[in-house]
Amino acid sequence: MATLIKGGTVVSSTGASPAEVLIDGERIAAVLQPASDIAAAAEGGAEVVDATGRLVVPGGVDVHTHMSLPFGGTFASDDFETGTRAAAWGGTTTIIDFATQTYGENVRACFDARLAEAEGNCAIDYGMHMILGGVDDDALAEMDPLVDEGVTSFKLFMAYPGVLYSDDGLILRAMQQAAGNGGLIMMHAENGLAIDVLAAQAFERGETAPVNHGYVRRKELESEATHRAIQLAKVGAAPLYIVHLSAAEALEQVALARDAGMNVFAETCPQYLHFSLEEHLDRPGFEGAAYVCSTPIRSREEGHQNALWKGLRTNDLAVVSTDHCPFCMKEQKELGLGDFRAIPNGIGGVEHRMDLIFQGVVTGEIGLARWVELCATTPARMMGMYPRKGIIAAGSDADVVIYDPEHRWTISVDNHHMNIDHSAYEGVEVTGHVDTVISRGRKIVDNGQYLGRAGDGQYLPRGLCQYLQ
Amino acid sequence: MATLIKGGTVVSSTGASPAEVLIDGERIAAVLQPASDIAAAAEGGAEVVDATGRLVVPGGVDVHTHMSLPFGGTFASDDFETGTRAAAWGGTTTIIDFATQTYGENVRACFDARLAEAEGNCAIDYGMHMILGGVDDDALAEMDPLVDEGVTSFKLFMAYPGVLYSDDGLILRAMQQAAGNGGLIMMHAENGLAIDVLAAQAFERGETAPVNHGYVRRKELESEATHRAIQLAKVGAAPLYIVHLSAAEALEQVALARDAGMNVFAETCPQYLHFSLEEHLDRPGFEGAAYVCSTPIRSREEGHQNALWKGLRTNDLAVVSTDHCPFCMKEQKELGLGDFRAIPNGIGGVEHRMDLIFQGVVTGEIGLARWVELCATTPARMMGMYPRKGIIAAGSDADVVIYDPEHRWTISVDNHHMNIDHSAYEGVEVTGHVDTVISRGRKIVDNGQYLGRAGDGQYLPRGLCQYLQ
Amino acid sequence: MATLIKGGTVVSSTGASPAEVLIDGERIAAVLQPASDIAAAAEGGAEVVDATGRLVVPGGVDVHTHMSLPFGGTFASDDFETGTRAAAWGGTTTIIDFATQTYGENVRACFDARLAEAEGNCAIDYGMHMILGGVDDDALAEMDPLVDEGVTSFKLFMAYPGVLYSDDGLILRAMQQAAGNGGLIMMHAENGLAIDVLAAQAFERGETAPVNHGYVRRKELESEATHRAIQLAKVGAAPLYIVHLSAAEALEQVALARDAGMNVFAETCPQYLHFSLEEHLDRPGFEGAAYVCSTPIRSREEGHQNALWKGLRTNDLAVVSTDHCPFCMKEQKELGLGDFRAIPNGIGGVEHRMDLIFQGVVTGEIGLARWVELCATTPARMMGMYPRKGIIAAGSDADVVIYDPEHRWTISVDNHHMNIDHSAYEGVEVTGHVDTVISRGRKIVDNGQYLGRAGDGQYLPRGLCQYLQ
Amino acid sequence: MATLIKGGTVVSSTGASPAEVLIDGERIAAVLQPASDIAAAAEGGAEVVDATGRLVVPGGVDVHTHMSLPFGGTFASDDFETGTRAAAWGGTTTIIDFATQTYGENVRACFDARLAEAEGNCAIDYGMHMILGGVDDDALAEMDPLVDEGVTSFKLFMAYPGVLYSDDGLILRAMQQAAGNGGLIMMHAENGLAIDVLAAQAFERGETAPVNHGYVRRKELESEATHRAIQLAKVGAAPLYIVHLSAAEALEQVALARDAGMNVFAETCPQYLHFSLEEHLDRPGFEGAAYVCSTPIRSREEGHQNALWKGLRTNDLAVVSTDHCPFCMKEQKELGLGDFRAIPNGIGGVEHRMDLIFQGVVTGEIGLARWVELCATTPARMMGMYPRKGIIAAGSDADVVIYDPEHRWTISVDNHHMNIDHSAYEGVEVTGHVDTVISRGRKIVDNGQYLGRAGDGQYLPRGLCQYLQ
Repeated sequence: MATLIKGGTVVSSTGASPAEVLIDGERIAAVLQPASDIAAAAEGGAEVVDATGRLVVPGGVDVHTHMSLPFGGTFASDDFETGTRAAAWGGTTTIIDFATQTYGENVRACFDARLAEAEGNCAIDYGMHMILGGVDDDALAEMDPLVDEGVTSFKLFMAYPGVLYSDDGLILRAMQQAAGNGGLIMMHAENGLAIDVLAAQAFERGETAPVNHGYVRRKELESEATHRAIQLAKVGAAPLYIVHLSAAEALEQVALARDAGMNVFAETCPQYLHFSLEEHLDRPGFEGAAYVCSTPIRSREEGHQNALWKGLRTNDLAVVSTDHCPFCMKEQKELGLGDFRAIPNGIGGVEHRMDLIFQGVVTGEIGLARWVELCATTPARMMGMYPRKGIIAAGSDADVVIYDPEHRWTISVDNHHMNIDHSAYEGVEVTGHVDTVISRGRKIVDNGQYLGRAGDGQYLPRGLCQYLQ
Repeated sequence: MATLIKGGTVVSSTGASPAEVLIDGERIAAVLQPASDIAAAAEGGAEVVDATGRLVVPGGVDVHTHMSLPFGGTFASDDFETGTRAAAWGGTTTIIDFATQTYGENVRACFDARLAEAEGNCAIDYGMHMILGGVDDDALAEMDPLVDEGVTSFKLFMAYPGVLYSDDGLILRAMQQAAGNGGLIMMHAENGLAIDVLAAQAFERGETAPVNHGYVRRKELESEATHRAIQLAKVGAAPLYIVHLSAAEALEQVALARDAGMNVFAETCPQYLHFSLEEHLDRPGFEGAAYVCSTPIRSREEGHQNALWKGLRTNDLAVVSTDHCPFCMKEQKELGLGDFRAIPNGIGGVEHRMDLIFQGVVTGEIGLARWVELCATTPARMMGMYPRKGIIAAGSDADVVIYDPEHRWTISVDNHHMNIDHSAYEGVEVTGHVDTVISRGRKIVDNGQYLGRAGDGQYLPRGLCQYLQ
Repeated sequence: MATLIKGGTVVSSTGASPAEVLIDGERIAAVLQPASDIAAAAEGGAEVVDATGRLVVPGGVDVHTHMSLPFGGTFASDDFETGTRAAAWGGTTTIIDFATQTYGENVRACFDARLAEAEGNCAIDYGMHMILGGVDDDALAEMDPLVDEGVTSFKLFMAYPGVLYSDDGLILRAMQQAAGNGGLIMMHAENGLAIDVLAAQAFERGETAPVNHGYVRRKELESEATHRAIQLAKVGAAPLYIVHLSAAEALEQVALARDAGMNVFAETCPQYLHFSLEEHLDRPGFEGAAYVCSTPIRSREEGHQNALWKGLRTNDLAVVSTDHCPFCMKEQKELGLGDFRAIPNGIGGVEHRMDLIFQGVVTGEIGLARWVELCATTPARMMGMYPRKGIIAAGSDADVVIYDPEHRWTISVDNHHMNIDHSAYEGVEVTGHVDTVISRGRKIVDNGQYLGRAGDGQYLPRGLCQYLQ
Repeated sequence: MATLIKGGTVVSSTGASPAEVLIDGERIAAVLQPASDIAAAAEGGAEVVDATGRLVVPGGVDVHTHMSLPFGGTFASDDFETGTRAAAWGGTTTIIDFATQTYGENVRACFDARLAEAEGNCAIDYGMHMILGGVDDDALAEMDPLVDEGVTSFKLFMAYPGVLYSDDGLILRAMQQAAGNGGLIMMHAENGLAIDVLAAQAFERGETAPVNHGYVRRKELESEATHRAIQLAKVGAAPLYIVHLSAAEALEQVALARDAGMNVFAETCPQYLHFSLEEHLDRPGFEGAAYVCSTPIRSREEGHQNALWKGLRTNDLAVVSTDHCPFCMKEQKELGLGDFRAIPNGIGGVEHRMDLIFQGVVTGEIGLARWVELCATTPARMMGMYPRKGIIAAGSDADVVIYDPEHRWTISVDNHHMNIDHSAYEGVEVTGHVDTVISRGRKIVDNGQYLGRAGDGQYLPRGLCQYLQ
């Protein structure tokens, strides 16, 4: 039986207007003019969902999550089951997570193992990026067939020497390979070698509190790495996607590259927009540990947050993802009591992205169409999943969120659904609420109930980035 | 009786996919998944238009035309009737033309007279910008009610001293007024005072040929004026739209302003992408006169054409319009035989925009979605007409073009429909052809026949620019 | 009888070292190694001046003064006699003032009249720039012979419409003429047309206090004009010298032009380094009137002062001059009681430049060599007077200042020698003091006594700017 | 007995004027006004050197030479004896060469050994930089005492992985140490990791000719490393001196840093100004090997040579040194027959710097004063040797060159004095000739004769860079 969502305002990346959405099976069968003959006809025989006073938006697409990520001797506390369920609660119907290869490992074996880890556990559809932590001839050779099979993006690290770090020669080689197969190079752009020197020196000086994580990961070392990645991408002729950009100076480098017409893109995350070094990372005692992530939360006094909102408007920041990577305070973040370097890096946020970015609409930082563009349409186009994902259109997957733009509530560990013992966003008041989530035609969240189940989500082979020029 | 366009690929500003379009009356009633139950149902009782192998795109929106413009003692040779008919032939279903006030005239009276000139004569829908050629207290006072009534953009000139020129103080005052009423300031950004000095000197040196028009209107004098307009817009807090940008250096100024998050936008025109000073403006004898327009056609050796294509990709150029302003060689362009300064400025092109920009798709300069975005969606959003215009969506005006992407043909004065005695594009081979044009639900071009009539087009009061931040 | 200055540290634009200076007549006969045979020989028969513990520096060169300038119905309160005497007290031994032509006047006649005004009245040597307030064919024709005779710099105004303002066409014509004769175009770079609009609006809103002078002369309107002047200079192929630069944003424009290798230079003045809008121009009541000058004193919170010191280090600011233009509070500044627009623009400072810039040495903003370079060597080279002026070298004019770098004192109307009823610098404590001033071989200030007399100073015909490339 | 140089034009970094120079012992006793009483007196008892029609300039200071440098299994063919003698022939009276520490070696021991190698062998005075090829705790600890003893500059390599390469962490640590002791960090700024990948790939593709050296050392990889070095210097708070800059894009990075007021400096070398990839490195057969040096000779079509001349004018390039590092074709350059990677990197030029840069005066690229500034005054100030070196002034070392600005001749292996079997400059015609060279008061070249001897030159402990701010 078909479903007709009527009475709402359908929002796309270019605007908002009243329309009715007819879902048939897993797909959107039609978008209809309200009160038209055909809309009236469609109503017969369909379950009608009343969206009066609501926004009807494409399901969110979060292209950067780390379920169960191993980090510093522990694992991110959300696995595919808990993490994707939390995502669903927050209006996200697609994630892309990462398979990781480290030095000496076989890329394909790592990918297969990771895929098996996800299979049957996800509440929503999911894709995979491939992390290359040990670029060598074998690893490069594995890239091409992966692209053919729908793994079209590869992440490299300029940070974390000795762990996932690639030096510039390895980066260049991977970029050259991507230039050939059309893959997108995703880059963690921080100068890890320099950061590690500063971190060790701070520790030796007895500066062990969480806030030092922010002090030593200097903005110059993010913008330097961003510039370097861009130049290597120029030499390697590969498209480049900078992940979790947080420094205004790094944004400038991206803007310059984009002005020059390069295939350079960047994302930021809600935590960089909402938190600051002064107010969060520098909280007394060990409280700041909750805000330890890399790139770090930056100073509001220096204006990074404003710069990032500006970047979201100028499209130099094209995507908002979460870099969801939750660690409990207890036994996880606490590993870094006495040494900020040992605090697992990461913040849990997969559930709150749609709401947090909607606050930019509420405060006037962005418009309604840009909200949908940043959180759904562009991520889908960037990662080769459009128009199946990222839009409400005839023929697209019926991933639909019915959103109440007026509902006010407060985020808390008591009402979130992520598997963490705290919320970095504890006490944050938001306007806007996910009422109903439909994933490939099925309601999985509705009326405060979770109706989905592990295994609902399918693996998504992806095409190439759709912004390449 | 409804119309169902089936078999085609519907193109939006974000991508292309197979879909069916149901038109009921003047509006699009639905966009439908092919082969869905509802599509099958819609087919019953509808005229079916077969678009197999064709692109189904929103009707073009050309926001810069000058029907019957007086210039140097003559008038642009297309009037509203001939010009809008030619536009229709080329797949453009909306234009915005200009009403002009000059020094000492009453703004409202000028507007009313111009509207009367258009009424009943247009083949397609049309809006109006207001040219302020004589900013004073009265003129400023007239801006607010015009905005309320749907005239939401005001053009000023930094060129043409003694004619339409406004000095920086007047510009600032108009910008301040626009800041208050939300209007968009459109700017002809060339330093006319300096250009006129150079032009007079060239003439005195006996350099009278058409190409001198290009030499004296130096790129530095376009980029200077662009920078100045941007700074005045910053002081005046007004949104700014640079018309007919042609110099790479001016583009750089726009890019800088946009990187800074300013409400600064720019358009270019097909002539600046396809023609060059060396190949066209510098043609022997008086032939180059056909390419005299302002800003001028620029040097290919200096790379302006490539820079403009790049700007179309980076969105520093957001719109392609035509600045349609045709003058016959005979008795019109010829006024400047012996003095390039007396050649009426303008090129006729309203008919060819969709095809010419489609050549960028053919050669890989831009993608299909960007073609639609530049020629329809963004112009509509920029000028406050979206979603009524600029998109194929349920509830929008049924302005639809069925486009054959494979058809190859050659532009000529013999097959164009503009009222000029020559074609600047004579002999240009293009791939892509407008097969059918539907305007508010009625076929006005089909199968090589013009089916519309003068008066089909309605005047469009407009809302504010939808990109303001 | 010769004079031998011994025991001191001679400072040049490249460094400082112990040396003895032998003066014979009006020239420096030799610079000698202390304790050398030749120095011992030179001592015989020479008056020995003991400079132990003192710096021996070239006499200051102030290339921007306005003795007796008419402004808004009154005249700058220092004439050539009082002004040059005050300059001498402050260690300045050369000034360049301005002759002014206004619209319709004959350039040469204006120049001759102004030269006559100075003749016989100056305590120190002086040159003349020519202000062109009414560019026309006659004025342009007069430029070439003036250059030949040693008036090698011409000032134009982008501010003060209706008074000295030139529009862009006139500016371009003057630049073209300068390109031919080698003259330097000096520019008052503020967008006067826009400023006058803002000023009138402020007045109409009842914002009449002196600080409004600073608010309406916005930094964007200085940087805009600076950019425009640079572009016109590019088109006109003329060298350009921006006078009294005060906005960080204007400095950026100069830096960009200089990076590109253009013949673009700029000066700032002590008042822009030492004063701020918040602390001085915004003083209560009418006190701020003492700080009304154009370009205006700018905000410290916005960082202009720091930016200017940086510019002095980077050489994007190559010269420090005073723009000396004193007006008494009584009967002069008071003309603007109730209307900031009527306050005569100007600050008296010709006496304090060497001391005020030396404070940059004291605080570490610049080094000793740079002090001499900014205040003497570069001004002399910029304005075609080197090596006669601006250096202590064999054969140069014996213009020498013996400077005590340790002496601390406080500037006051009670101890200055300018003809004003107040001091803008009242109460400013400085370290460093002019002990002795020698002008063309004669001591004119020594031991707290003024030993010179009106008429000591000679008119200096000048060569071309020595930085042209 | 004293020496009086009369009749000549003394050139300084600020200008040129007739003056006489009295030398007494090793120092300049006086600079005298021609025809003054004291000049006449000085003439008695002095040997008079007639410099009529000649320029009298400070002895050249070449701060970048590599005598006997080991490279790829061979050694630079000039040792301290032959190399400094050749320098003297070319009017250079001071060099700074390098001591080299490699990984695991003791810095001080390396320095002492290198000093011993030079001692007693040099024709002219010499200083030493210290190359740190193996930064570790010991090496860092050795920096401070070296600075105290006059080794105030330390060179690091971002190129040559596995040989002299330091990674970014090591660079940062060395910079931090320099920030503490005032030393200047000299940087070979090329991304060697990326270059080595490209070089290996080219070799594997069979691209083995010398020109490939230029192709793989891409300009982006020089500008990237330059940007990175600047950012690390910002983090490390150290002054930075970029050696042998050759890419226009690297120059842009330096210009940006300097505009921002950073202590960032750069040198270029004559080979980058005079040679090009097209005309020299790409010569047929193995001829191009003579032009293999790093950074590489770059493309004239891309405009690097013009950009470098511009940089010399804007002072973004402050110094011209030679990077003198000669290798014979026979048995040395030939090591790279069949593999461009094995060609020893270096060009011999210590003898020709003064003449080659003087060609910029001849062609109008720079002025006479700038020639002296680039080749003598600034190098001496940059490296802490001024005013002992780099200027003709009372008390300075009597290092003087008498230069004939009109003499035309042709460079050839047949007339040069460097120990190489070819000249990269073979056949280059120059205007200007070193007639006489005086080093600390003694003529060492005169009238086509070499009058000096090994051991004349003294080691020069140096002070800190004099441009620090």
